[in-house]
Amino acid sequence: MFAPLQNDCFLRACLRQPTDHTPVWLMRQAGRYLPEYRATREKAGSFMGLATNTDYATEVTLQPLERYPLDAAILFSDILTVPDAMGLGLSFQQGEGPKFAKVVRDEAAVAALDVPDMDRLRYVFDAVTSIRKALNGRVPLIGFSGSPWTLACYMVEGGGSDDYRLVKSLMYARPDLMHRILDVNARAVAAYLNAQIEAGAQAVMLFDSWGGVLADGAFQQFSLAYSRQVLAQVKTEHEGQRIPRILFTKGGGLWLDEIAAAGADVVGLDWTMNLGAARARVGDRVALQGNLDPNVLFAPPEAVRAQVRAVLDSFGRPAAGSGHIFNLGHGISQFTPPESVTALVDEVHSHSRRLRAAP
Amino acid sequence: MFAPLQNDCFLRACLRQPTDHTPVWLMRQAGRYLPEYRATREKAGSFMGLATNTDYATEVTLQPLERYPLDAAILFSDILTVPDAMGLGLSFQQGEGPKFAKVVRDEAAVAALDVPDMDRLRYVFDAVTSIRKALNGRVPLIGFSGSPWTLACYMVEGGGSDDYRLVKSLMYARPDLMHRILDVNARAVAAYLNAQIEAGAQAVMLFDSWGGVLADGAFQQFSLAYSRQVLAQVKTEHEGQRIPRILFTKGGGLWLDEIAAAGADVVGLDWTMNLGAARARVGDRVALQGNLDPNVLFAPPEAVRAQVRAVLDSFGRPAAGSGHIFNLGHGISQFTPPESVTALVDEVHSHSRRLRAAP
Repeated sequence: MFAPLQNDCFLRACLRQPTDHTPVWLMRQAGRYLPEYRATREKAGSFMGLATNTDYATEVTLQPLERYPLDAAILFSDILTVPDAMGLGLSFQQGEGPKFAKVVRDEAAVAALDVPDMDRLRYVFDAVTSIRKALNGRVPLIGFSGSPWTLACYMVEGGGSDDYRLVKSLMYARPDLMHRILDVNARAVAAYLNAQIEAGAQAVMLFDSWGGVLADGAFQQFSLAYSRQVLAQVKTEHEGQRIPRILFTKGGGLWLDEIAAAGADVVGLDWTMNLGAARARVGDRVALQGNLDPNVLFAPPEAVRAQVRAVLDSFGRPAAGSGHIFNLGHGISQFTPPESVTALVDEVHSHSRRLRAAP
Repeated sequence: MFAPLQNDCFLRACLRQPTDHTPVWLMRQAGRYLPEYRATREKAGSFMGLATNTDYATEVTLQPLERYPLDAAILFSDILTVPDAMGLGLSFQQGEGPKFAKVVRDEAAVAALDVPDMDRLRYVFDAVTSIRKALNGRVPLIGFSGSPWTLACYMVEGGGSDDYRLVKSLMYARPDLMHRILDVNARAVAAYLNAQIEAGAQAVMLFDSWGGVLADGAFQQFSLAYSRQVLAQVKTEHEGQRIPRILFTKGGGLWLDEIAAAGADVVGLDWTMNLGAARARVGDRVALQGNLDPNVLFAPPEAVRAQVRAVLDSFGRPAAGSGHIFNLGHGISQFTPPESVTALVDEVHSHSRRLRAAP
């Protein structure tokens, strides 16, 4: 059904197999910093208009690959499609973040939650298949979802937050309700990722964007336990191919050992964690993905290249049993000059080849 | 000039001397969650009107001590008084955060920066003396400042930020300019804290509220190096009394060892760090302050008490050479029910006495 894969560098690094260079892709690589993305977005009328249209989603997913020799593509979608399918009514106001029409803050709203019929997310699976076909084997396609905790943050807050007051209030005051939300989310996310794999995703990533706002103890109980539940339910193989699973916790560096034991093949790190230190602790158990600060891309190309080298050098020379996927530590900013990405990708490829060739 | 100190529990814990209970105070304890604060704020007309008036600043500093048996008072002021005195024009819009009329983003603005005449901050030192007198020896008074990096964030961004794009762009593109800002800030902050000590502050705290947004490597170079410079220049004694110095880095848990070596007597921690693990790593070198998630205070009193016990238990029984000051991991929320603080303070005192009495 799909063309054979030509560049398996990303998948090999995820599985800690030798590669001739360090693979690179960028969180939110199909996005507003690209003028061609903004043009498609304009045609689509709205963000959800873009995400729910197979042709548009395919078009924007492939845009960054036309500009840059990236080693993976990632499905163009949003982390909040699952709660939207639960009937919470996701929308994006102009210039603002996501908003839900309904929020989940009381016993009745929690009781009403259930794993959505995956048919309501058909547009995502159709996009996966369409993108995989359009890629024509160039690079692997990554599927993704928000983590149960991260979805819960938005479902309770009703949108973004800077203090997570409402979701944490519910968690501390009514842990029973929070556990019920998280269990529903975990089952929904597992079904969602499995359907993406069946539709053609060759790796999947769980974004625990807000795990790092939790207190020690609460993180393990309310975030990591449910990511682990998802990972236990997500396929590790499909049609004879291993499907690598990536778990990214922004601000999760302090819990690296526990995160590395959650069942993922790859742990994503933000820029606060030293990659060399992370590798020393867990490098033989999981591959690592990260971790350049996206704000580096506002510096001139030579400074971008120097910071890219610093990240590669901090991981060190890849050896048997270790794996590194270069990425940012968070999504690329909409204000990024596209030529900074040219410098980044080129430097990752050339410097990582030099590191491997060094005596 | 000042009355003798009656409750030295906080100062003793800072210096890792035995205490009969764990001392407690709360970041932003004089604040909007208290109706009496809001009444004084109303009279003062504006936040800066409150902070710059000696009588009002004294009044609000003492308000939480009337309600709760806290073990320390903290000067009512703002972390941004120093850049305001540099001429940047600090103001607070209704319902918004701080704003500077002038920003520091280019060579000319950086060149124009200098350590301000401390006379422009006389209102702060007058407040310190007035509060110390009004305390009449009840509990010690803590002075404070923003760290050089944290001040720089606001000076470059012009206010709060959620991505620190402008300050990081300057840092990555023109590290020379950033180092010059930070050096001016460090000298200004040291002079400012020394003047607070001379005016009557019995301990001082450096708030590196935004150190945790930096990448590993950048944190050490642009935040910690300048906090260390401040601490090297701030008095350790005044009129025969040791002046404990606290360094708080929100999100700094990954760099705990390096922070503990920066010259402070006490390291403040946010809720992401396990206190027992922190104590195991650095507990014999510095005291630890923290680290309850302020959002716990939105739970019912019994849940507040349980979380307080969990924090005290995670530190464990204080022993010779260790010190713990109970605090939140960040400032108290304006939406906090005041009765939650009653439960918190009572539980810290009673449970920490039980821990010491346990066989």
